Amino acid sequence: MNLAALLTSAGINIALCVVLFSLYSILRKQPSNVNVYFGRRVASRRRIRLDLGLERFVPSPSWILKAWETTEDELVAIGGLDAVVFVRILVFSIRVFSVAAIICAVLVLPVNYYGQEMEHKKIPLESLEVFTIENVKEGSKWLWAHCLALHIITCAACSLLYFEFKSITNMRLFHIIGSPPKPSHFAILVRAIPWCPEECYSATLKKFFSYYHITNYLSHQMVYKSGTVQKLKDEAEHISNVMKSNSLVETCKSSFKGCCFCGGPTNFKILSKDIYGIHGKAGYSDMHLKARKKECAAAFVFFRTRYGALTAAQILQTSNPMLWVTDPAPEPQDVYWSNLCIPYRQLWFRRIAILVASMAFVLVFLIPVTFVQGLTQLDQLQQMFPFLTGILQKQFVSELVTGYLPSVILVLFLYAVPPVMMLFSKVEGPISRSGRKKSACCKVLYFYIWNVFFVNVLTGSVLRQLTFFSSVRELPTQLAKAVPAQATFFMTYVLSSGWATLACELMQFFPLFCNLLSRFILRLKDDSQNGTLTFPYHTEVPRILLFVFLGFTCSSLAPLILPFLLVYFFLAYLVYKNQFLNVYITKYDSGGRYWPIVHNTTVFSLVFTQVIALGVFGIKRSTVASGFTIPLIICTLLFHEYCRQRFLPVFKNSSAQMLIDMDRKDEHSGNMEEIYEQLHSAYCQFIVPSQCPSECSSHHEEKDPEKLETGNEPEQTNGSWAKQSPGEII
Amino acid sequence: MNLAALLTSAGINIALCVVLFSLYSILRKQPSNVNVYFGRRVASRRRIRLDLGLERFVPSPSWILKAWETTEDELVAIGGLDAVVFVRILVFSIRVFSVAAIICAVLVLPVNYYGQEMEHKKIPLESLEVFTIENVKEGSKWLWAHCLALHIITCAACSLLYFEFKSITNMRLFHIIGSPPKPSHFAILVRAIPWCPEECYSATLKKFFSYYHITNYLSHQMVYKSGTVQKLKDEAEHISNVMKSNSLVETCKSSFKGCCFCGGPTNFKILSKDIYGIHGKAGYSDMHLKARKKECAAAFVFFRTRYGALTAAQILQTSNPMLWVTDPAPEPQDVYWSNLCIPYRQLWFRRIAILVASMAFVLVFLIPVTFVQGLTQLDQLQQMFPFLTGILQKQFVSELVTGYLPSVILVLFLYAVPPVMMLFSKVEGPISRSGRKKSACCKVLYFYIWNVFFVNVLTGSVLRQLTFFSSVRELPTQLAKAVPAQATFFMTYVLSSGWATLACELMQFFPLFCNLLSRFILRLKDDSQNGTLTFPYHTEVPRILLFVFLGFTCSSLAPLILPFLLVYFFLAYLVYKNQFLNVYITKYDSGGRYWPIVHNTTVFSLVFTQVIALGVFGIKRSTVASGFTIPLIICTLLFHEYCRQRFLPVFKNSSAQMLIDMDRKDEHSGNMEEIYEQLHSAYCQFIVPSQCPSECSSHHEEKDPEKLETGNEPEQTNGSWAKQSPGEII
Repeated sequence: MNLAALLTSAGINIALCVVLFSLYSILRKQPSNVNVYFGRRVASRRRIRLDLGLERFVPSPSWILKAWETTEDELVAIGGLDAVVFVRILVFSIRVFSVAAIICAVLVLPVNYYGQEMEHKKIPLESLEVFTIENVKEGSKWLWAHCLALHIITCAACSLLYFEFKSITNMRLFHIIGSPPKPSHFAILVRAIPWCPEECYSATLKKFFSYYHITNYLSHQMVYKSGTVQKLKDEAEHISNVMKSNSLVETCKSSFKGCCFCGGPTNFKILSKDIYGIHGKAGYSDMHLKARKKECAAAFVFFRTRYGALTAAQILQTSNPMLWVTDPAPEPQDVYWSNLCIPYRQLWFRRIAILVASMAFVLVFLIPVTFVQGLTQLDQLQQMFPFLTGILQKQFVSELVTGYLPSVILVLFLYAVPPVMMLFSKVEGPISRSGRKKSACCKVLYFYIWNVFFVNVLTGSVLRQLTFFSSVRELPTQLAKAVPAQATFFMTYVLSSGWATLACELMQFFPLFCNLLSRFILRLKDDSQNGTLTFPYHTEVPRILLFVFLGFTCSSLAPLILPFLLVYFFLAYLVYKNQFLNVYITKYDSGGRYWPIVHNTTVFSLVFTQVIALGVFGIKRSTVASGFTIPLIICTLLFHEYCRQRFLPVFKNSSAQMLIDMDRKDEHSGNMEEIYEQLHSAYCQFIVPSQCPSECSSHHEEKDPEKLETGNEPEQTNGSWAKQSPGEII
Repeated sequence: MNLAALLTSAGINIALCVVLFSLYSILRKQPSNVNVYFGRRVASRRRIRLDLGLERFVPSPSWILKAWETTEDELVAIGGLDAVVFVRILVFSIRVFSVAAIICAVLVLPVNYYGQEMEHKKIPLESLEVFTIENVKEGSKWLWAHCLALHIITCAACSLLYFEFKSITNMRLFHIIGSPPKPSHFAILVRAIPWCPEECYSATLKKFFSYYHITNYLSHQMVYKSGTVQKLKDEAEHISNVMKSNSLVETCKSSFKGCCFCGGPTNFKILSKDIYGIHGKAGYSDMHLKARKKECAAAFVFFRTRYGALTAAQILQTSNPMLWVTDPAPEPQDVYWSNLCIPYRQLWFRRIAILVASMAFVLVFLIPVTFVQGLTQLDQLQQMFPFLTGILQKQFVSELVTGYLPSVILVLFLYAVPPVMMLFSKVEGPISRSGRKKSACCKVLYFYIWNVFFVNVLTGSVLRQLTFFSSVRELPTQLAKAVPAQATFFMTYVLSSGWATLACELMQFFPLFCNLLSRFILRLKDDSQNGTLTFPYHTEVPRILLFVFLGFTCSSLAPLILPFLLVYFFLAYLVYKNQFLNVYITKYDSGGRYWPIVHNTTVFSLVFTQVIALGVFGIKRSTVASGFTIPLIICTLLFHEYCRQRFLPVFKNSSAQMLIDMDRKDEHSGNMEEIYEQLHSAYCQFIVPSQCPSECSSHHEEKDPEKLETGNEPEQTNGSWAKQSPGEII
């Protein structure tokens, strides 16, 4: 592939992007698309001004200006800390790759281009390999340029990483201190409550906590089973009860059900719409629902102080670590209710099973990727399908096949990955939605890096020969041979996958299609079908990190990738900021917990780059450059360990000092009683329509929890203390 | 090597053992050796009855009977929980290898022996390889016998491991609950106290804890610097102060030194003998010592309740995890004072440096081991040293060289390892002596398993060819070829290293030699030079575990090793019990924390055995046996994970329930005030002779901390609340 082919590919993509961006700026002005492009504003009931003149059919860059001007504080208010962390990844990438691009343009590119004594063609016809380190001859004295570039890039990346980590840590702390009192600070989640035959879980729990945490224990709220099977069973029971009419009151065993609801001052008023409609008697339906809900061995326990909750959550409660398992409670809207009923004893087994399943998934996925990779090698393709020979020998088709098609197919295959990983993460049994998304994010990240990078690099040259496991010691050398050779593929990947996904993200094709379908074909008027979406961190964070990884790995070896990456990151900065502002709503927030993942991946990328460079310097027989690279690897690892020690614990646990200060402040200002009152209603598994704030009253449809797995979850309410039932059926 | 050679080797070792054991039973009856063989009783001032008649020159098995009859409760009282754990390892080994021996004798040995159609010689002349799995022909249907044996051994091992873990966990809990109140339960160690320019550490600490832990904070005690350099500096200062005579009082800056000792009601009376002697004025020397000791950024903080101390120790104190680092306090006699002054910021770096150093040490150690291994291969030895050819061709020399010499040299080399690892563990900066020993134990264990097993197996066949890193996927196959071939070496290793070290352990050659030297040559009368020893867990636990590892790996492949191992474990059971009873004193106890190491290593051994078996079944082309081995590996790993979840947290942290129950009990019985009073004097870094209990008054010599590194540490006192200065100079 020569430079002209690459520029053709870039041209196609630029044209595509310009068209789609213009189309977007028109479509967003149409009143019929307001649900698609302004979902967040619709959800928060803000008025959206739309010009209805002819201007709405003219493309305009106003959204770009708006996105550019949005400050970090506005972003925190709109998208929570996670949105800021996401934008920070992009800012970090722009900064570090700008440095890399300058350094590489000055130092590395000339050395590569004049690396061998050869007659240069005109630059557009020059093969791309001339610009990579492959063109530098063995034993060249100019390899110090690559080594120096590597050092400068590493230093820039590490110092930027350090300051980013520090600033995000401070932001997280400030966010916790500055936010209004949260119920999650006063609550813990207790699982694996031991079963006593003579009393129910609620009574056991009350006894335990009022004995061992007497000064801090406030109240508790049990978690109830409400799976599909349970629902059907209960429905049947209900019908049989209706048949028996009022005799139900006597048959109900008071010894059991009475004691099940003695758990402190939690006042449930859980009503079922249809029953309420039939009978109209609150007493009857209350009683019925009591019979309907069954306790799980899990509960939320509320404490008088934040510090009390923190200690109870972190300390081993009894000498059997499989009983009375305590965890900090997630925010009410973040709780993954259906997972709370999973018996705690299953969890370790589930985690291992999912680990194995994920690994199996990664291995099976090799097959399509290997096939896709085959498409980039025309001669092998011609061998496999001889009838294609005629077509493939045409100039244009050959450029299309080698430059564009493989990445498109790969992208299509990769679309299936996030939902599968989300399902895996659900089965693992996390207690919060943000935890599930974070876990899926890690899985998708491993998947991307393994399947996009390693498999392409390692099987690229040797199709179907999967013997890359065979040699561990020669891995750096193998990679050093394969990575510069595969740089072309990664460049086209950035162009096609990177730029195109940004345009798709902006266009929101699928919601747009659904919207058109419902409006103009099905003629529906009900807007509530188009539930607004939460930001899919589990697909976007790994995608950005994959490009960061590709950028570092290729930077000093094949620096031509850097301009394309910089354009990508800059576009991403604008597009995602716009999406945070207009499209996605923030239902739950992990409080910046994505940053440690970003930090780890970046350091891994750096070390990996250095190892590859070491291999390259070994192949090119430059002992000086190799000698200077080894201390760099050690220093990078030490830097990572220091950051882990210095910042990571803050992302895992809250500190005593902070919580005690907050407690004292609330005690002095006399807010505590008010907080306690709100606590009782904060964690409400089943919603009563009358108790719900008016703004969310139209959202009480039945939601199937399975629908939520892609991360594009329908929003119900937006208030932090509102009573919600994510994924639960009323 | 044939069976006769092996039996010759066994004969030599049996004779040696019998001679040494008899010698021991005579030597222990001599009054002059009482310090060597009854160190524990001497230390605890018990009367030792010795016959002075002629009987004392006749060997007798009385010590064996005594050791056999000692119950577990007596052992807990004498040697603490660690001693019981150690004996439990031996009991577990005896049980599991008895099962293995029976199964292998019935199932595996006949299959191996008649594995190939060959003419059998007389059994003593039979090569040892006839008894290993190498003798079974490819594709044999009888390999199910090996597979079944593997299953039975795994099941037996896992169920025994489970019950042992359970029983040791219960024992640990019972030990904590049942023991008298310990100061360590009420104390935490705080490190990295932030430096305020306007006030000293003590004041900063008091301010912090009396604000944030107001209900629980009782008092604190600073840690002071007292290194050698500091000592010399202080001595110079002292002399100059003496010159200036009484003018010292005025020159002392009251603003600094006054506030340094305001740290709660701790009443130091730290006296220096010589100064006390010169001046005879308590006031003066008190003041002088205050000037002499400099505060570190570390302190022990005491709490009103055990639960208060637990929460303070486990919770992140401030939002900077590098400040106010809290840990549960070790027992007073377990504190490693000189490590407490290490700046906390260094620790992560030290840990990494030591990790790298340990790995480097393991690699350098390859050279002597490779040489030793060369000795077992006569033809290669003859090539290297042609002048030896004549000698080596003699039958006896050849048997000696192949059967005995290599292991003796290996043992001698291995003697250098534990002190080096102990030094490494010290530099890591653990806060307790037991922690240091545990860390050294792990290092020595990795070292043994790597250097004795892997290096022997992998370099055994290909001398000096260290390419065992090259192939990961073929590792099971390579091991499957090498392990049965090296089984002979391991048998002789058990005989020489195992049995001989037991005899050496019993004889205590080095202390015996020192005793003889001082008594009969130097004519010293002072017994106190022979400080009693603590049990060297860091050498003995890894040794036993290495034999367990060898036992499992060879069990179903080369079962002839099992009888030798069983004899070893049985002798070890008697010898070590005897040593616990008579020789070693218990100065500090890790509370059974060695068991998780034992558990992990045993499970690793099991899985490793299964992987090797898988490789062997692969080579022998038995798909059925391979197919049944894979689920076995998975089940073993699941079992391990379950045990980790179920028992491990108890070994890391105490539970709230237990500590609160203990607190309530003490509160009800009114013991708390008494405990508080004792707390103040428990953690005393520098000892005043007059405050010390009379029984230990003779032990206040200067002890160099470096002397203690081999784990054979001189004992000072035995009481749990006594004031001691391990490793500190008065």
